[in-house]
Amino acid sequence: MLTYIAHWLEKRYDLTPDRTAIQLKDRTKITFRQLRKDSIEMAERLKGIGISSYDHVALLSKNSYEMVTIIHALTYLQATVVLLNTRLTSKELLFQYENSESCFLIFQDDLKGKGEEIEKQHADEMFCFSTVNQQEQVSFSIPAEIALDDTFTIIYTSGTTGFPKGVQLTYGNHYWSASSSALNLGLYENDRWLAMVPLFHVSGLSILVRSLLYGMPVHLHESFHVEDAQREIMEEGVTIVSVVSVMLEQLMADLHEKSYPETLRCMLLGGGPAPKPLLESCKEKNIPVFQSYGMTETSSQIITLSSQDALKKLGSAGKPLFPAQLRIEQENGINQPYEVGEILVKGPMVTKGYFKREDANEKSFDQDWLKTGDLGYLDEEGYLYVVDRRKDLIISGGENVYPAEIESVLKEIEGVQDAGVVGIEDDKWGQVPVAFVVRRENQSVTSGRILEHIQTQLASYKMPKRIYFVKSLPRNASKKLLRTTLLEWTKGIHNYDED
Amino acid sequence: MLTYIAHWLEKRYDLTPDRTAIQLKDRTKITFRQLRKDSIEMAERLKGIGISSYDHVALLSKNSYEMVTIIHALTYLQATVVLLNTRLTSKELLFQYENSESCFLIFQDDLKGKGEEIEKQHADEMFCFSTVNQQEQVSFSIPAEIALDDTFTIIYTSGTTGFPKGVQLTYGNHYWSASSSALNLGLYENDRWLAMVPLFHVSGLSILVRSLLYGMPVHLHESFHVEDAQREIMEEGVTIVSVVSVMLEQLMADLHEKSYPETLRCMLLGGGPAPKPLLESCKEKNIPVFQSYGMTETSSQIITLSSQDALKKLGSAGKPLFPAQLRIEQENGINQPYEVGEILVKGPMVTKGYFKREDANEKSFDQDWLKTGDLGYLDEEGYLYVVDRRKDLIISGGENVYPAEIESVLKEIEGVQDAGVVGIEDDKWGQVPVAFVVRRENQSVTSGRILEHIQTQLASYKMPKRIYFVKSLPRNASKKLLRTTLLEWTKGIHNYDED
Repeated sequence: MLTYIAHWLEKRYDLTPDRTAIQLKDRTKITFRQLRKDSIEMAERLKGIGISSYDHVALLSKNSYEMVTIIHALTYLQATVVLLNTRLTSKELLFQYENSESCFLIFQDDLKGKGEEIEKQHADEMFCFSTVNQQEQVSFSIPAEIALDDTFTIIYTSGTTGFPKGVQLTYGNHYWSASSSALNLGLYENDRWLAMVPLFHVSGLSILVRSLLYGMPVHLHESFHVEDAQREIMEEGVTIVSVVSVMLEQLMADLHEKSYPETLRCMLLGGGPAPKPLLESCKEKNIPVFQSYGMTETSSQIITLSSQDALKKLGSAGKPLFPAQLRIEQENGINQPYEVGEILVKGPMVTKGYFKREDANEKSFDQDWLKTGDLGYLDEEGYLYVVDRRKDLIISGGENVYPAEIESVLKEIEGVQDAGVVGIEDDKWGQVPVAFVVRRENQSVTSGRILEHIQTQLASYKMPKRIYFVKSLPRNASKKLLRTTLLEWTKGIHNYDED
Repeated sequence: MLTYIAHWLEKRYDLTPDRTAIQLKDRTKITFRQLRKDSIEMAERLKGIGISSYDHVALLSKNSYEMVTIIHALTYLQATVVLLNTRLTSKELLFQYENSESCFLIFQDDLKGKGEEIEKQHADEMFCFSTVNQQEQVSFSIPAEIALDDTFTIIYTSGTTGFPKGVQLTYGNHYWSASSSALNLGLYENDRWLAMVPLFHVSGLSILVRSLLYGMPVHLHESFHVEDAQREIMEEGVTIVSVVSVMLEQLMADLHEKSYPETLRCMLLGGGPAPKPLLESCKEKNIPVFQSYGMTETSSQIITLSSQDALKKLGSAGKPLFPAQLRIEQENGINQPYEVGEILVKGPMVTKGYFKREDANEKSFDQDWLKTGDLGYLDEEGYLYVVDRRKDLIISGGENVYPAEIESVLKEIEGVQDAGVVGIEDDKWGQVPVAFVVRRENQSVTSGRILEHIQTQLASYKMPKRIYFVKSLPRNASKKLLRTTLLEWTKGIHNYDED
C-alpha cells in the first residue's frame, strides 16, 4: 500500500488557498495561503537554528498562532514535534525533554521559567519564540510529500506506573483519525471548529489536522473562557466545539434561558465520563452533545456517540468510528453484554507504541489491539459504557491525574513511610486527588511540608486537595494498595485509624 | 502502518443497521441490516458452490440488488470479484475470464447467451443467479476484518495496444477513494446517491463503497432512463448523481423550463471531457455540475472541480482530491502553466498495477506515479484541463473505445490489408468510431461483410458508424499510423484517395 501522500498543508493550500484556516479570538482571519507562507518562513528560521529531518523538537507553548506555525514548520522540516504540557513543573518537563531524546526546546517567551531545569543541562538547545523570530532564514527544499509512517508527534501520557510515556503518533494515525471523525460527524461547507482545549493535548492538536483535511476554519483561543465560547457559538457561526465536562457545565450555567443557534451542530465531549445530570440538562436544552471516548494513544476520539443515537443512548460513549474496532475482555475471554471488562481498541488511528518503552509496549498491546486499561461494558446493541476511566485514574478538569505518580512523589519526602491517593468528586473539577499518608515512626512531617514539596515536583492540578494521616494503608496479601477501601474511607463508609 | 480494518459491511451494520442502504427503482428500501443478512446468505450459497478465499470470481450482471449482494458476499469470502461488462461479446468475455484466471462465472439468468464462449471450455464453472439461489448454504466464519492490501476488484480496461488489461484495485484503493471524495464533496446527513451507471464500471461500483463508509442510501437503477432520473431528483431527495455527458444532455433537454430542487447538490460528471455548451447551459440553470477526471486505475474520480470553483473554472476537471497528486510531464521535464503534456497522477486510490501484465506495469508507472497517457495542461492556478482523453481514445456514451482494438479486429478479415480508426463527434454519444480500410489487391470485401464480422467480435458500441475505403493509410517513417491525418480526412480538411 502506498505510504506517501501529498504534504497536507501544501495540499490544502493548493486546493483552497483563500479559505480561512485560523480565526483568532480578536476575529483576525488567517487564510491557508498565509498559514503556509508563515509556516514555511518559520521552517526557514528553525532550519537556521539547526533543526534537521527526524530531529525531536520539544515545543512548550500555550495556544497561539505562532505555535500553529511552528507545528506546521516542523512537518516541512520532517522533524517530530514533542508537545509539552505548560502546566507541568520544570522537573517534569526535564524528564519529558530528555526521555523523548529532544535536541531542541522551542518555548513561548513568558514560559521561560518552566524551562529552568532543562536550562541547567541543555541551555544551548533552548530557543524562545522571539529569538527564533530574529533568526536568519535558511531556505530548504519544500517536501511535496509526507510519509504516513513517519512520527508527527510525541505527546506524554502518565502511566499507572507513574512514569510518563511518550505516545508516538504518525501522520497516518492523525490522517485516519481526521477522516474517521468526518465519516461520523459529517462534513459541512459551513463547518468551523472552536478550539479552546490545548494544542499540546491531542484533543486540540487533532483539530488542526482536521482543518487541513477538511479545509475548515479553526477558531483558536489560548484557553477556555465561558464568555468567549458563548460569543463564538452565538455570533461567529462555530458549528463544532471540543469540550470537557467542566467546560460544558460552565457553558450550561451561563446559558440560563437562552438557547444556541442551529449553526451549532456538535459539542464533542471528551476527557472522561460526564455526569449524567449534565447530559440530561443538555438534552432538555437541545444541545447536541456527542459523548466520546479516546486518549492520546488513539489520536483523540476513537469511540463517539453519533447524532442519531445521542439522545437514546445517554451516558454511552457510542461506537467505534469507521473503521476502528472495539472489544471488551476479561481474563476468561470476550464478554457478554453488560459484563464489565477491559476496553481494547484497534484501528489505523491507534499509536504504533510508546517511544523507547518496549516494556510498556509489550504490556499495552495484544497484537494490534491497544489494551486501554479502562473498564467498560457494551449494551445489547454494542454501545460502549465506560465504567472507570482507567482503574484508579483521576480526571481533574480534563487533565489526567495518576495516583501512582503523586504517591511516588509523596514517598520521596523524608518522614513519609507510605502513601495512597484516590480521586473524590468535586463540583468544579469533576474530580480532585486526596492523599492518605502514613508517617514514619517518631517523625512529625506536616501537611504544609508535604504540599511544599509536591509544589516543586508536580503541576498544581495534581496537588492533593486534602491529606489524611493514617496509621496504615489497606493492602492485600500481595501488598497491592486497595484503592477501593481508600474511596470508602473518603465517603465514611468505613473508618480508618487516624494518626 | 496498520493494514487491517473492520470489515466494511460488518462495520456499517454495527453503526447504522436501520438506515437505508439501497433504494430500488420501485422505491423498495433495503436497510444495512437486510443487506448484510442477504449478503451473508449469498456468501453461504457461494461457499456452497465451492468459492474460497483468494479465488477470482467473474460476475456478469446488469445493476440489480442481487448483484450488490454477490459483490458483498465475495468480500465475506475474501475472494476477488472480476466485474464483466455486459455489453461485451462472448469472445471478449472469454478473454477476460481466462486472462483474469477466474475459476467461477456467476451470471444473471438472462445473460446466458453472453457466456457462450466461456461455456465451451468452462461449463462446470458457470452458475446463473437462480442456480446459486437454490444452492445449499454452507456456513463459514464471518471475517471481522479486511486487509487493505487485498485485491477487492479486477475490472478490465482496454489498452492502446488493443489487449484489455485487468486493473487490480485493493480494498485500500477503494477506501481512500471514498474518503477522498467526501473530503471534497462534503458529507451531509441527507445525502442519497443516484446510481444509474453500471456497477461493473468503477463509476458505479465506487458508489457502493461510499455508501458503506458514509452510511448513505444508494438509489440503484438497472440503467439510465431520463424520466426515472428526473423523478429521483425531483421527488426522492437524491442529492448526488453520477453522470456522463450524454446523460446530462438528455436530462437538460428534458428539463425545459423547470429547475431542480435544492436537495440536488452535485452532478458528478465523469467519463470524458464534456462539451462546453452543455456546461454553460447547466450553469445558466444553476445545476451544480462537478466535472471530474478519473479512470478505472484511479478507483473513479481522482481530480474533481470542487463546488466553489465549478463556475469560475468551467471546462476544467479541477484539482486532485486530498491527498492525491498530479503532474504534467513532457519528455523534457515538468511543464509550465498552459503547456500540454502527459497527465501523471499519484495517490492511495491508484491501482498497484494490472493483473499479471508486467510489461504494461513497467510502461504505465514511473515509481508510484501512474502515467495516464492522457494529455492536459494546468492553468496558472494549477487547475487541470484535459486536452485529449488519452491520445486516440474514443469515448462513446461514457464507454471507452480504443481504436487499436477495432483495428486489430478489422485486420483479421480476409481481404482487409490495413485499417485505421478514429472518433468523430456525435450529437448523441459524444463520439463514435469510424474506420478507414485498405482492401487487399483484387479482393472485393464490402462494408456489410466487415460489419458482420465485427458484430461477432466486439460490443455494439465499438461498431464503426462509417467505413471509408481508401487506397492507403497515412503513416510516418516508422510506420506509425497518423491518426491526426485520419481526423483531418473525416473533416474534409485534406482529401484522401478513395478506393
